[in-house]
Amino acid sequence: MAAMKLHGNPLSTATQRVLACLYEKDVEFQFVDVDMGAGEHKSEKFLSLNPFGQVPAFEEGDLKLFESRATTQYIAQEFSDKGTQLLLPGSNKTMAVLQLWKEVEAHQFDPPATKLVYELRYKPFFGLTTDTAVAEENEAKLGKVLDVYEGRLAQSKYLACEHFSLADLHHLPTVQYLMGSSAKKLFDSRPHVSAWVAVITARPSWTKVQDMVKQKV
Amino acid sequence: MAAMKLHGNPLSTATQRVLACLYEKDVEFQFVDVDMGAGEHKSEKFLSLNPFGQVPAFEEGDLKLFESRATTQYIAQEFSDKGTQLLLPGSNKTMAVLQLWKEVEAHQFDPPATKLVYELRYKPFFGLTTDTAVAEENEAKLGKVLDVYEGRLAQSKYLACEHFSLADLHHLPTVQYLMGSSAKKLFDSRPHVSAWVAVITARPSWTKVQDMVKQKV
Repeated sequence: MAAMKLHGNPLSTATQRVLACLYEKDVEFQFVDVDMGAGEHKSEKFLSLNPFGQVPAFEEGDLKLFESRATTQYIAQEFSDKGTQLLLPGSNKTMAVLQLWKEVEAHQFDPPATKLVYELRYKPFFGLTTDTAVAEENEAKLGKVLDVYEGRLAQSKYLACEHFSLADLHHLPTVQYLMGSSAKKLFDSRPHVSAWVAVITARPSWTKVQDMVKQKV
Repeated sequence: MAAMKLHGNPLSTATQRVLACLYEKDVEFQFVDVDMGAGEHKSEKFLSLNPFGQVPAFEEGDLKLFESRATTQYIAQEFSDKGTQLLLPGSNKTMAVLQLWKEVEAHQFDPPATKLVYELRYKPFFGLTTDTAVAEENEAKLGKVLDVYEGRLAQSKYLACEHFSLADLHHLPTVQYLMGSSAKKLFDSRPHVSAWVAVITARPSWTKVQDMVKQKV
């Protein structure tokens, strides 16, 4: 089997998503730091890995992937017998429930969460001013999504089932950034969501990703 | 096997996505029209199917799904031996390439495309005024995405491989709406994209979906 390479930047949420997956699966890989400040992600070499010029990009011999959620799905499937079981194998119906909650993260949670990460974390980090109207609008949207999560997590320990899966893992980067912002109150005020956040952010795989982030800031 | 029910509205892009998949797989199902004008998608009954109050929702006995792309994935997998093969079975690597192009649709193509459908089609339909600044911004974004598609489709007949798959199918609703708007030029001006649009919108499954749309407008 060819060696796996992940080209990315530890500050990027999409890169963190794939890193968390690789650490959960306990597989060997090489991390290639992409210097985004120098525009390396727009270089011809990087565009041959991901024509959209976004981190991360993944290589395993001839297989070249991008889009973080496609990459985690491949890693979880290819190494299904290693490390943490991140899928819900069994039947098409159990896999459909996992897929459902992965899509909820991507289409309900992520859009307002990503806008809030930008307004509340990246902008201050880069010396820009937060647009409070945009922040408030997206806090309201995220609050409504978390109301649904609160109901779901009252019935199920994790989003897709009773064990940690890709559906939970995909939330880690944005949740972590938002817990260090004024949007923390949205999670803290919902008891089941709050307990879920505490459990998923305490995973050793996530500590390893956070250690890589700390070396960057 | 329990009968399949799809609760939705033929004008909704997400509903159309699942309808196209059901017709491609040539499986029997019952369509339940949700009266969105009367707010039926926010009723207690509908919220028990999809807590986000969005169409479509899918039922097959005890299995209740929502999120159109999770629903199509389930249908394509469950009926893999019926109708059109919409997946790329073979290995984790071939499935990863399909997943990659499905994620590209969801995260690169769909955000600007959906904003354009709203500005250029839904707003005029409901007597609202198009925000031309928003439309121009999203036309520029979609154009950059289609540049990447043009490169991909110069090498491959369809997005994920040499046959029609879920990755192509997921584009149909937004592409169809945009081909009836000023954003048509973005597709027409790119020869490989234009040929791909002609081929995918000519599928008999899609004609059936369009017939349902016509009965609504």
